Amino acid sequence: MRLLQDRIRKDGIVLPGNILKVGSFLNHQLDVALFNEIGREFARRFAGTPVSRILTIEASGIAIACITAQYFSNVPVVFAKKAAGANLSGDFYSTPVSSYTHGNTYTMTVSREYLQQGDHVLLIDDFLANGCALEGLAALVRQAGATVSGAGIVIEKGFQNGGERLRAAGVRVESLAVIDAMSQEEGVVFRRT
Amino acid sequence: MRLLQDRIRKDGIVLPGNILKVGSFLNHQLDVALFNEIGREFARRFAGTPVSRILTIEASGIAIACITAQYFSNVPVVFAKKAAGANLSGDFYSTPVSSYTHGNTYTMTVSREYLQQGDHVLLIDDFLANGCALEGLAALVRQAGATVSGAGIVIEKGFQNGGERLRAAGVRVESLAVIDAMSQEEGVVFRRT
Repeated sequence: MRLLQDRIRKDGIVLPGNILKVGSFLNHQLDVALFNEIGREFARRFAGTPVSRILTIEASGIAIACITAQYFSNVPVVFAKKAAGANLSGDFYSTPVSSYTHGNTYTMTVSREYLQQGDHVLLIDDFLANGCALEGLAALVRQAGATVSGAGIVIEKGFQNGGERLRAAGVRVESLAVIDAMSQEEGVVFRRT
Repeated sequence: MRLLQDRIRKDGIVLPGNILKVGSFLNHQLDVALFNEIGREFARRFAGTPVSRILTIEASGIAIACITAQYFSNVPVVFAKKAAGANLSGDFYSTPVSSYTHGNTYTMTVSREYLQQGDHVLLIDDFLANGCALEGLAALVRQAGATVSGAGIVIEKGFQNGGERLRAAGVRVESLAVIDAMSQEEGVVFRRT
């Protein structure tokens, strides 16, 4: 998605440790007009694919998921929560997730009420890197007896193996910008798609 | 807002401890069509009021803020973050906030880059009860040398004193549904506005 790549080149900041800072438009300050273009593009790519619900993970996925839902007949959006400890209540689906960003493990939970057997669930998130968050979301969908329709990702770090692993597992991953390499000296190199 | 009150009556669940569970449409599963009506109503109420930025707090405020921004010429949305400890970095505005819901205190932070001196900031949140979160957001705005244009709240617990205190402090608070009383037996009683 050219508009997005241009924006990342213009406003993204590459920091040491393979961190791409996009807080000015994607995950701290939010450019809602850009999100509308992102939502429109997800709808184009998943046209004809059944989607009865959109699932994301707090916090920064929520904005993108909600704007995107407007292009999918306003299907309900559900966001999974990050719990500090294991959630043992029977009211929730839950799965442990390793966070490389924060160097810890959290329990991802979603209420059983809001994922139904037979649902076709589109996963949405801002970043895909090692894939642990997305695999967690897919695990919650499976626990509900629902189907993953696919995953819509804004920025994929193609030099990490999450996208490869998820695609090998049969998940249709649509990433609007795939970064093959980045450095403070050279900036960001996008995969040609 | 009649549509919202009807929805709260239909799908809200009153739990012990003055908890109103609205996870099926407001803060776990998200009804984006309803959020559009909410955003439209905030725009109607704040018509003529200068708004250059919308500020909310993760996680459930983000969805409402982003949908609402579409009715304010897509002004940037910024969400404050909840940090576990004190954030001493000079890159952030920060303020301590007591959370009655979770029985702890957290530090609310926002990057200095995304609140500017001279900004007219509309605060958006899903709930207003004791007012601590909203007062925290207002404190961040003041630290930035910006102005609070007002606060748009979806559900105000009118039997707690946050709304009263904020209005007494000069903040224009627009709550789309104000609950004067609620109980498991009697359900929810809305203030007539």
